[in-house]
Amino acid sequence: MSDDNSQIKPWELISSSKALDERWFSVRKDVVKLPSGKVLDDYFVWESPDIVVIAPFTKDGKFVLCEQYRHAINTVLYQLPAGGVGKNETAEQAAIREMEEETGYVSSKVTFLRTVSVYPTKLTGLNHLFLAENAVPEGVKEEDEMEPTRIVLKTPEELWALINDGSVHIADSLITILLAFKKLGLDKSL
Amino acid sequence: MSDDNSQIKPWELISSSKALDERWFSVRKDVVKLPSGKVLDDYFVWESPDIVVIAPFTKDGKFVLCEQYRHAINTVLYQLPAGGVGKNETAEQAAIREMEEETGYVSSKVTFLRTVSVYPTKLTGLNHLFLAENAVPEGVKEEDEMEPTRIVLKTPEELWALINDGSVHIADSLITILLAFKKLGLDKSL
Repeated sequence: MSDDNSQIKPWELISSSKALDERWFSVRKDVVKLPSGKVLDDYFVWESPDIVVIAPFTKDGKFVLCEQYRHAINTVLYQLPAGGVGKNETAEQAAIREMEEETGYVSSKVTFLRTVSVYPTKLTGLNHLFLAENAVPEGVKEEDEMEPTRIVLKTPEELWALINDGSVHIADSLITILLAFKKLGLDKSL
Repeated sequence: MSDDNSQIKPWELISSSKALDERWFSVRKDVVKLPSGKVLDDYFVWESPDIVVIAPFTKDGKFVLCEQYRHAINTVLYQLPAGGVGKNETAEQAAIREMEEETGYVSSKVTFLRTVSVYPTKLTGLNHLFLAENAVPEGVKEEDEMEPTRIVLKTPEELWALINDGSVHIADSLITILLAFKKLGLDKSL
């Protein structure tokens, strides 16, 4: 373990070009110099969008989940409302917007929980996680043909069971739920 | 909320082609038919590898973390040992191998915790999470110029503090740690 006390250094970016220049999928090809001096001429990075995830928690103690289809893993699953941050909005504004669009719920108390990275070697985007308390279905749910959504309400106990049987397994949703359990003081009893 | 009781259907794959055909980054361009009938002719999917993450927990009650550089977010950070699953190994074998290669630790008790998806709309890969109890530094740490690694040992309280100040923010590591806390009965006291 000779390097245990050495400083970890970033790579040096020598040059960068577009490997895939698509509106929804822009991939960069970086030429980088490693701390060892070695040069890699094909390190690929997806310039992915920043994402928001929000856990709506109703006045009567239920979480609002979305049942949706996810194409890359070809699965219909439960997750929290989530989506990309638009150009002219903050992460919190995006989270509030996504919650209303996908579920029809609005909230009088939105709290920032944490920012995480889901794939820091290859994806530039960060995921910003929020909790929405006192959620009520008084907003306008939007129909989105890209993302048909069925709304499901679950108590913390029911949601914990869904997590344990693998039905809720999207990383950013799962962290948001676990941090929300802690924030709401529900974790001690689960 | 007219679609709340309707069944959520998968998309129909009409055809697929390679948009980027690189050894470390293979991107598929799918033509898909949505449940609405609309056809999308450019839905991109990164055929990403399956990943393993493992939380080594020592006999004297410390977690073994890796300080490493992550290029896409240009940050030096703490995370658990992790890596791709090889062609001729199971996820558990890969996790045990990655733990020894990155940290030099081996364990007599490896437990599967959960499989998660970090980006189910765009990445095919799944992440398999493990806990390694009774971890001891009796293996062989490998020097990897792509991934120089400094090993850091943290008590659960120190690790929870690092999570709360944002120093540990990689999604799969974070879930593994939170589930390990629960499995080890540490969560009630944090």
